[in-house]
Amino acid sequence: MKSANKRVDPTEVRTIACVGTGVIGGGWVAHFLARGYRVVAWDPGHRAEASLRHFVDSAWPALRELGMADSASRDNLFFEPDLHEACAQADFVQESAPEVLSLKRTLLSDIDSATPDHVVISSSTSGYPMTDMQTECTRPERTVVGHPFNPVYLIPLVEVVGGARTDEDAVAWASEFYRHVGKSVITMQREVYGFVANRLQEAIWREALHMVAEGEATVEQVDLAITDGPGLRWPIFGPVMTIHLAGGQGGMAQYLDSFAATLQAPYTRMAAPELSAELRAILVRGAEDEAAGRSIDDLVEERDKRIIAVRRAVGR
Amino acid sequence: MKSANKRVDPTEVRTIACVGTGVIGGGWVAHFLARGYRVVAWDPGHRAEASLRHFVDSAWPALRELGMADSASRDNLFFEPDLHEACAQADFVQESAPEVLSLKRTLLSDIDSATPDHVVISSSTSGYPMTDMQTECTRPERTVVGHPFNPVYLIPLVEVVGGARTDEDAVAWASEFYRHVGKSVITMQREVYGFVANRLQEAIWREALHMVAEGEATVEQVDLAITDGPGLRWPIFGPVMTIHLAGGQGGMAQYLDSFAATLQAPYTRMAAPELSAELRAILVRGAEDEAAGRSIDDLVEERDKRIIAVRRAVGR
Repeated sequence: MKSANKRVDPTEVRTIACVGTGVIGGGWVAHFLARGYRVVAWDPGHRAEASLRHFVDSAWPALRELGMADSASRDNLFFEPDLHEACAQADFVQESAPEVLSLKRTLLSDIDSATPDHVVISSSTSGYPMTDMQTECTRPERTVVGHPFNPVYLIPLVEVVGGARTDEDAVAWASEFYRHVGKSVITMQREVYGFVANRLQEAIWREALHMVAEGEATVEQVDLAITDGPGLRWPIFGPVMTIHLAGGQGGMAQYLDSFAATLQAPYTRMAAPELSAELRAILVRGAEDEAAGRSIDDLVEERDKRIIAVRRAVGR
Repeated sequence: MKSANKRVDPTEVRTIACVGTGVIGGGWVAHFLARGYRVVAWDPGHRAEASLRHFVDSAWPALRELGMADSASRDNLFFEPDLHEACAQADFVQESAPEVLSLKRTLLSDIDSATPDHVVISSSTSGYPMTDMQTECTRPERTVVGHPFNPVYLIPLVEVVGGARTDEDAVAWASEFYRHVGKSVITMQREVYGFVANRLQEAIWREALHMVAEGEATVEQVDLAITDGPGLRWPIFGPVMTIHLAGGQGGMAQYLDSFAATLQAPYTRMAAPELSAELRAILVRGAEDEAAGRSIDDLVEERDKRIIAVRRAVGR
């Protein structure tokens, strides 16, 4: 906890080291630059600096349109050929190396030894638990996962979770920092393979693969089924609130009581969990909490207004 | 095929009978009225007419904003207490009764006997195969499923499929008719439980239920994971094109070759199918067909522009 006490406040971060500058790392660089940070980037790849600057230039118009910090400038990007030099100056490190466990382990250990003790180190990994990646770090207590979505500079979601040897304090600090830089943060209480969003996304992808493999739907039909169907609702209300609205005036409770049998039907290859009284209660209360006082009629009105706006946004 | 030859052209339909006027049936009524049709509605429920007119009034501003036919008018809605009278005048029948198989069977048989031979009868069912519903019809060859999404007047998707005794011709006619009234149509070659979109949607829902039941994520986190993550991309590109863009310049082929191992990882409760050479080829060709000549850079530019528009549309 000593090192934790020395941490700068998440709002006081000035310099960020971005280690690995492919599509994900480059996306972080663009996002942090747009938020006015000084970014020191490191990547051992051939022509990595030129690629990164090209990537940031491509993303810049979109970032400008979304609105950037007054101090935002591409001149705040410094490409540093030495990893230790890059990390030594950082108030925060974002690692976005290729998804190879042995490489991540070694790299995080190198970053760990080069980075001041009080600085939080976050990995963009989409799959590995930090417990498996922090094994060779001397100060693993400040290593966390901060998993973003592509394109990092446009999709707000970041999933934050620590490993077995991570301090809770580092997870809390990273969550607060990501919120401060404009991200939507899910702070997980424990490591789950694939985190949250990728598990949900992979479930759709696997069902789609089964359907295509069995000739039940074409590739084009799978995409149309989402883009012109539930995909138009999902930026507005997630799966839980969608069900809350599908239940009529009785919301989630009414839906669960009417459609419990659906969970036993072969509506997908995935078997459903038992709808226990406890799970039912969590879902009903969760939907009510998210509704936050809005009636079903209020939610329907909001949904309809926003579906029209989304349809216009995508030209359909 | 005799009755098929007598069918009016899909563009010549003037009067539609809507049987069952709950949330789905009412949504169809609103959609058809906005497209300028004369709608004859039937529903045996208590105060069904008042509820329906209230529902149509609520949907009307949204429909006006989306753009309606010059001839669109709520005065074209006629509530008919007699099912036979309603069906006798129809050029097309849309059935949206509660999801109870025995009820659907009897009702479709009644509709069948009341509706002129050449008229196509379509069921909104979200679950039952037409093969199981058309068993008591005298002329089952003109009965199809036309499964919409809620809210019917705003979400374009309709999935069309026939049963074992349905003429292909009726399926083709219904598909053409739905396209004519502004819907996005998936015409399925054979019956699959839950059709396409609900299978994909149910896969997400079941994975979410497992995560909530196991304490891996809260209800709020499940929703945020979608609304602030992949949900912002799905109105733009479906699951297949999302993967095509996740593969870098090599697109789908590069992704499948790099991430094949992901399919074996416990990224969701659902087991993946084998990624055979045949499935790989279908996916790669399908993604290229959908890209329709647009390079990865073109697609990325389009995605980014539209993600910004979607974020604005939903206020994030």
